[in-house]
Amino acid sequence: MNYQPRPDDIRFLLDRVLEAVPRLRRLPAFAEIDQDLQAQVLEEAGKFMAEVIAPCNRDGDEIGCRFDAGAVTTPPGFRDAYRAFVDAGWPALLAAPEDGGQGLPELFGAVLFEWLNAANHGFAMAPVLLHGAYECLKHHGSDDLKQRYLPKIASGEWLATMCLTEAHAGSDLGQVRTRALQQADGSLRVTGAKIFISGGEHDLSDNIVHLVLCRLPDAPAGPKGLSLALVPKFLPDGARNAVHCDRIEHKMGLHGSPTCAMRFDDATGWLIGEPNRGLAAMFVMMNAARLHTALQGIGLLDAAWQKADAYARERRQMRAPGPVPASRGAEAADLVAEHPAIRRILDTQRAWIDGARLIAYRSAVQLDVARHDADPKQRERAQRWCALVTPVLKAACSHQAFHGASECLQVFGGHGYVREWGIEQVLRDSRVSMIYEGTNEIQAIDLLVRKVLADGGTGMSALLVELRDELDAARDIDADVQRRLAQLRYLTTTIAMAAQADPVLPYELADDYLRIVMLAMLAWAWARIERAAPPDDCRWSDPAAAFRRWVLPEFELRLGIVKRACDAVVARAAAA
Amino acid sequence: MNYQPRPDDIRFLLDRVLEAVPRLRRLPAFAEIDQDLQAQVLEEAGKFMAEVIAPCNRDGDEIGCRFDAGAVTTPPGFRDAYRAFVDAGWPALLAAPEDGGQGLPELFGAVLFEWLNAANHGFAMAPVLLHGAYECLKHHGSDDLKQRYLPKIASGEWLATMCLTEAHAGSDLGQVRTRALQQADGSLRVTGAKIFISGGEHDLSDNIVHLVLCRLPDAPAGPKGLSLALVPKFLPDGARNAVHCDRIEHKMGLHGSPTCAMRFDDATGWLIGEPNRGLAAMFVMMNAARLHTALQGIGLLDAAWQKADAYARERRQMRAPGPVPASRGAEAADLVAEHPAIRRILDTQRAWIDGARLIAYRSAVQLDVARHDADPKQRERAQRWCALVTPVLKAACSHQAFHGASECLQVFGGHGYVREWGIEQVLRDSRVSMIYEGTNEIQAIDLLVRKVLADGGTGMSALLVELRDELDAARDIDADVQRRLAQLRYLTTTIAMAAQADPVLPYELADDYLRIVMLAMLAWAWARIERAAPPDDCRWSDPAAAFRRWVLPEFELRLGIVKRACDAVVARAAAA
Repeated sequence: MNYQPRPDDIRFLLDRVLEAVPRLRRLPAFAEIDQDLQAQVLEEAGKFMAEVIAPCNRDGDEIGCRFDAGAVTTPPGFRDAYRAFVDAGWPALLAAPEDGGQGLPELFGAVLFEWLNAANHGFAMAPVLLHGAYECLKHHGSDDLKQRYLPKIASGEWLATMCLTEAHAGSDLGQVRTRALQQADGSLRVTGAKIFISGGEHDLSDNIVHLVLCRLPDAPAGPKGLSLALVPKFLPDGARNAVHCDRIEHKMGLHGSPTCAMRFDDATGWLIGEPNRGLAAMFVMMNAARLHTALQGIGLLDAAWQKADAYARERRQMRAPGPVPASRGAEAADLVAEHPAIRRILDTQRAWIDGARLIAYRSAVQLDVARHDADPKQRERAQRWCALVTPVLKAACSHQAFHGASECLQVFGGHGYVREWGIEQVLRDSRVSMIYEGTNEIQAIDLLVRKVLADGGTGMSALLVELRDELDAARDIDADVQRRLAQLRYLTTTIAMAAQADPVLPYELADDYLRIVMLAMLAWAWARIERAAPPDDCRWSDPAAAFRRWVLPEFELRLGIVKRACDAVVARAAAA
Repeated sequence: MNYQPRPDDIRFLLDRVLEAVPRLRRLPAFAEIDQDLQAQVLEEAGKFMAEVIAPCNRDGDEIGCRFDAGAVTTPPGFRDAYRAFVDAGWPALLAAPEDGGQGLPELFGAVLFEWLNAANHGFAMAPVLLHGAYECLKHHGSDDLKQRYLPKIASGEWLATMCLTEAHAGSDLGQVRTRALQQADGSLRVTGAKIFISGGEHDLSDNIVHLVLCRLPDAPAGPKGLSLALVPKFLPDGARNAVHCDRIEHKMGLHGSPTCAMRFDDATGWLIGEPNRGLAAMFVMMNAARLHTALQGIGLLDAAWQKADAYARERRQMRAPGPVPASRGAEAADLVAEHPAIRRILDTQRAWIDGARLIAYRSAVQLDVARHDADPKQRERAQRWCALVTPVLKAACSHQAFHGASECLQVFGGHGYVREWGIEQVLRDSRVSMIYEGTNEIQAIDLLVRKVLADGGTGMSALLVELRDELDAARDIDADVQRRLAQLRYLTTTIAMAAQADPVLPYELADDYLRIVMLAMLAWAWARIERAAPPDDCRWSDPAAAFRRWVLPEFELRLGIVKRACDAVVARAAAA
């Protein structure tokens, strides 16, 4: 079965829990947004994903991208689907009206990208970087460069790439060696080799705009000597630039997206932003990509869940224990969905999907607030949220996509391991998102070391207070979440103190800390969802119960691991 | 890199921790076993795996098995490797001398199969069922059948299959529909279709002996109406039997092993054992296969670990935090192995491998004791161990193979997601072992519902006492494990009582209970290993520390989940 977006689920979260439209309307840029517009975008996007994007997902995996003599052919249906995607104006959803865009909020883009990835992860890799490239160019490009490239990128007529990784340096951008020489006419000559470039070469768009991390002569060593160059596949005069795809990788999954080894051979390009400030310019793009990776994880998990749920409601296996289920009738075996072990899997993954959705959509709203609110205090608060929550969401959602898809695969028994039902594709595809856009281990270090501890925990503490204040202490469930948020605040201080005695400790505990933050936020999300949901609606109460029963106990587990480690360090320091 | 068995690691566990040889020598059948023989078997098996079996693992995945018009061609190298495997006498290692075997203990077979799977999971699927088929035929076959088939199966000259699953019934064997009609000459005519038959057709051996679950006319419905038939590909007169392979499955991994859809079209066969007692006869085979699946998981995880460990010791990425590592020298980046997040992954997986190995090898010794001890009490104790521990090992080791391989893949960053290093193959291959030989959910129900609660927890309690008595309460580590074993005993009683109020509860908690048992046994294993290991040998102390720090806390997590669920049931019952 192909993925089928369910706009009603999303609308419940946006309208009843987040009250997103009223919040967005308070921003001058979105004063015109209303429920009708939101409903229309969701309906049309859902239909488009189901009818145009999802149907070519299977061929994307089984036939995949083909490489021949420097050219890449995308899987059957991808070209037409991409043309339809551009024609329908989806890439331009968020771009500013002056660039030909529709100027809609990040929130709508978040839902769109979640569904796009759920429907077809391989396909989604092509446009996923467009908006980041647009923002990067818009904020850091010269007027000349913007005039030439911004409208085409805004519309999606030309696709974009992010060229960071080199063979000797994966996550270690400071080691980048690609060279750029400035020319008399203001252009650059770029020479170097990049690997793992998603969409580095393909047949989806007439031109491909590469954003390339490189070094100018005499640049300082390390990350502070990196510049960012725009290097197009075809030059403005129509000539082919010296940008070559040497091969595409044979990957575990994601066969619908070509992962290219690129060679820049004295290629012509132009500087984006200041010399040696390339990382700052690219950061805009990387941060957007991280939230997208989280949404990707949510989408993939929902795709896996839909498959497993449908299979479990159709397939019969053995007698379920307990009272006779209504679905039994005269059948010799009960539905797979009636077995407690399977119910647990389905409800638990549902809990992850809906809880993570709420946090991700809230993060998207915060992006809008950070950019558009008239009040600088609100902008600052929103920026804090994005800085702290983005790595948490990226790591936790990509992790859950893979591990939850594996649980969903289990629902199929042996049929899950063969291609037929498409569930094993989700598992293979999803694994990469734990690695790209910064591995999950790097996200955890980014969170704890670079962000939380960098200001002694002040920012995190403020975020936790913000979360607390949105809860209703009179409700038992909310009060429990408030208690956990307080525990997390205290824990942050404990780590900060222990880190003074042992600076390596935060690197050892970063993964646990990130999980604790995610679980606390999920608890917050489910408290909010439960308050808004009709009291006896099992669509929401079953995953809520599963969350508290099977997911949330990991909070104490991780808390214990972190506390014991901190206590041991403090005890050692005291004894020394 | 190909898998490289490390006999020294195994010898430490067998000699220093388990004292296996002295234990085996107390059994009359193995009075002649000595250290030299054990050393010789390990050395030769290790060399054979590294030199003959491991090298064709990659082609097994990339080229895989090919199906054409009913015939299956195995991957390049597999035929020669299998011939060498038979010629070296490995299949006959455990078979009785009177059947042409070497009559060695199950323990040696366990090490052999662990390594075989680590070296090449796809290849290992071919002979993995041989020993089970041998035992099944030896104990339940007629003299005539044994004379014709036993020696060829013992030597591995002919391979065997286990034909259980049908398209409409996966785990639900009671639904099997394949029919068998008795003929005047004592043979059967077998008609039906089976799916997911590993090695149902191939070119490795001249004949294939299928053991087929089927129904005689007028057999009772359900599992008690199942009979077991031996149906060979070629009949004793050399004629081709009416056994057909209709297709092989396209799977997520394990491409080196053909998973066949088989059709029996009025095929000639013979009954094994009594009519309608087929499940009992096949049970011998299934139980052996479950321990093998556990060993497979251990082997695959060790294969993943070896790859990750080698990569982490060679590849450099970024600066590691903390004191300058000795390996830094003049390098701009530190070894991946120096980063705390990576150390944690490697040490944690090592903890799983070595701890699970000890439990699995001990289980293999128990199989030998159950079969050969002169004292019926010892045999009974050993049988109890096998009945309780086998489902725990099957589920926990196959789970860890997949999840641990995913952790090991993470060590490679983006390089883990491409074929090059072979780590993604381990991940894809290993996933199936959570499903076959009874899904892990079924193992958990087998443990808790069918075994532990069936006798009110008496057997489990006795096992826990046995484990406790092997610990030294004077040591802190051992005392902690004893405390956990006592908690588990108490928990078992708690579940038994709550189950009286809610019979569905054990089905909901079975997975948690199985994990608790495994973690308690791992704690027991590591206490035993630490007592035997040289005090400052980081080969054992690093994984021991990782076990206590990162793995064991799940014990409390699961304990809490089970306790809260039981308390809730009891409270509801009291209120009613």
